[in-house]
Amino acid sequence: MFENTERTNLDQMGEFGLIEHLTKHVELNEKSTIKGIGDDAAVLDFSNKKTLISTDLLLEGIHFDLRYVPLKHLGYKAVQVNLSDIYAMNGIASQITFSIGLSSKFPLEAVEEIYEGALIACKKFNVDLVGGDTSASAQGLIISVTSIGYADEDRIAYRSGAQEGDLLCVSGDLGAAYVGLQILEREKQVFLDNPKIQPDLEGKDYIIERQLKPEARKDIVQLLDSLDIKPNAMIDVSDGLASEIIHICKQSDKGCKLYEDKIPLDQMTYDTAREFGLDPTVCALNGGEDYELLFTVPQSAYDKLRNLPDITVIGYITEPNAGYEMISKSGNVYPLTAQGWNAFKK
Amino acid sequence: MFENTERTNLDQMGEFGLIEHLTKHVELNEKSTIKGIGDDAAVLDFSNKKTLISTDLLLEGIHFDLRYVPLKHLGYKAVQVNLSDIYAMNGIASQITFSIGLSSKFPLEAVEEIYEGALIACKKFNVDLVGGDTSASAQGLIISVTSIGYADEDRIAYRSGAQEGDLLCVSGDLGAAYVGLQILEREKQVFLDNPKIQPDLEGKDYIIERQLKPEARKDIVQLLDSLDIKPNAMIDVSDGLASEIIHICKQSDKGCKLYEDKIPLDQMTYDTAREFGLDPTVCALNGGEDYELLFTVPQSAYDKLRNLPDITVIGYITEPNAGYEMISKSGNVYPLTAQGWNAFKK
Repeated sequence: MFENTERTNLDQMGEFGLIEHLTKHVELNEKSTIKGIGDDAAVLDFSNKKTLISTDLLLEGIHFDLRYVPLKHLGYKAVQVNLSDIYAMNGIASQITFSIGLSSKFPLEAVEEIYEGALIACKKFNVDLVGGDTSASAQGLIISVTSIGYADEDRIAYRSGAQEGDLLCVSGDLGAAYVGLQILEREKQVFLDNPKIQPDLEGKDYIIERQLKPEARKDIVQLLDSLDIKPNAMIDVSDGLASEIIHICKQSDKGCKLYEDKIPLDQMTYDTAREFGLDPTVCALNGGEDYELLFTVPQSAYDKLRNLPDITVIGYITEPNAGYEMISKSGNVYPLTAQGWNAFKK
Repeated sequence: MFENTERTNLDQMGEFGLIEHLTKHVELNEKSTIKGIGDDAAVLDFSNKKTLISTDLLLEGIHFDLRYVPLKHLGYKAVQVNLSDIYAMNGIASQITFSIGLSSKFPLEAVEEIYEGALIACKKFNVDLVGGDTSASAQGLIISVTSIGYADEDRIAYRSGAQEGDLLCVSGDLGAAYVGLQILEREKQVFLDNPKIQPDLEGKDYIIERQLKPEARKDIVQLLDSLDIKPNAMIDVSDGLASEIIHICKQSDKGCKLYEDKIPLDQMTYDTAREFGLDPTVCALNGGEDYELLFTVPQSAYDKLRNLPDITVIGYITEPNAGYEMISKSGNVYPLTAQGWNAFKK
């Protein structure tokens, strides 16, 4: 896949050479960064804020398929996915560490692309790259990201804080990343069957971008702050809406009512799901990788939220014995079940 | 390799089931941990201390060979290696995140062993496991650890702080882990040639343990603190003494003189290196994986250090133009060169 590009072999550079090469353009802009790359550990100063830490593994053949994921997008997405966890605490991400394991089939230029994507994401979100590890891998490409952030203690939104009567809200729209993945998988199959056929992605930009280049919702954290709204509970939608709602309800010891007709779906998501014979609601409930924020707020916040185009009230929190329920468009009541992604299923 | 043990298949548990199972015995003891596993991110409170972050990847076939590394040792070592970076800043490690990627050839019992080893290391060093990621891997076993710690700003020892005239000191002894690896590799080869032959490790406990079960030197950080000694520069010996000395000298813009006869070697390391036809000094200089602390202190600290059994003065820091030199046992002067490990070399 790198046939037409310049190739610089990694084994000639060595680990220190590679790290030096990759990190020479890394800028530090976050005021909490005292020391970034180049020592045994990074040094950070959060003074009176609390420190937030989250980490993710992204593995070739499990989380991504290099046959259709451009390397720059991969680096970008790896960072976004991880920053999303910090925003899901209602915090601000400030640093990441970025580790790569890669086999020698990758030339330097490929690694540079991954790094470039990661640094674009960092710059966009004002996050400093302060460390990482770079290693040969005997097998596929491995990315491990750890995000660090901060928040005032009284602003942190745990999954466990939902209160009875809270409004259940979600940012953006759902299901698009999953439907985008279906298109990419379909076109991969077409390509494998006949490599001369060009992929047909026309008019599907939005949903493909939602799969390949998700955007973490720092803007929502800032918006809620500017409106002086403190979410009682918050989580990011990585495994699908149903799974995340149940996480909040379980950890808060509450029930919930979700209204199917309130679930925000983009028209292209809806239409494409139908093309694939999929129920658009199921794509939103179980699809995952949306990286939107799901949160609960007291009813008193409704007037501030009702006219915001990017936040939708989709239900409310009930007492624990009421269970987790979805009211369908036709008015029927269904139990919500988590059918989130299981990486261990064959 | 798991034929005779109980097998519980991971694909039936799912990721959440596995995480819940593995983490149910995780205790939080560090007072800076506000929230550990179970939300989008861990929440930590370092109040007026600075935060330290370091991360490492450990990959099957590159950093370890499951044919002779017991899984419990692997979990233990993965944590030790990473904590060592926090101590190398003259800080105290307080939390880790621990991520595993594993193929379905591993039963639950194998993952439990890795975790058990990691938790033993955590307990020993009073470190909380506060997060991580658990994923299927299409290839080999992958471990990614991030360590978090803290230090008062004026106690942090960077690599760049060495001063002309400083004493160059190292804890413990060197080269043992490398020589231990030679034995394990030899016995693996014997076993591969004839599986009926039992490995001959007799009398080699110390050096094999140095390879399989290294101990990070938190005790040295505490000892220096109790003696009121602030190292001007510090690094941990992961790639070999020569490479680490050069890191300190380069980043401090200084030269150094190292005395070969001062390099601390255990007798078993010395004898076994000779058995393999290796120069024991070269094992210490280029072997790596010792996880001892290399540091520089002002000459005024000499009286406090001179009688400590676990710290050896091995040389001193010179002006930059003097280069990096080793004075051999016979009094000859050799330039020090870094021949540390290159993971990308085939």
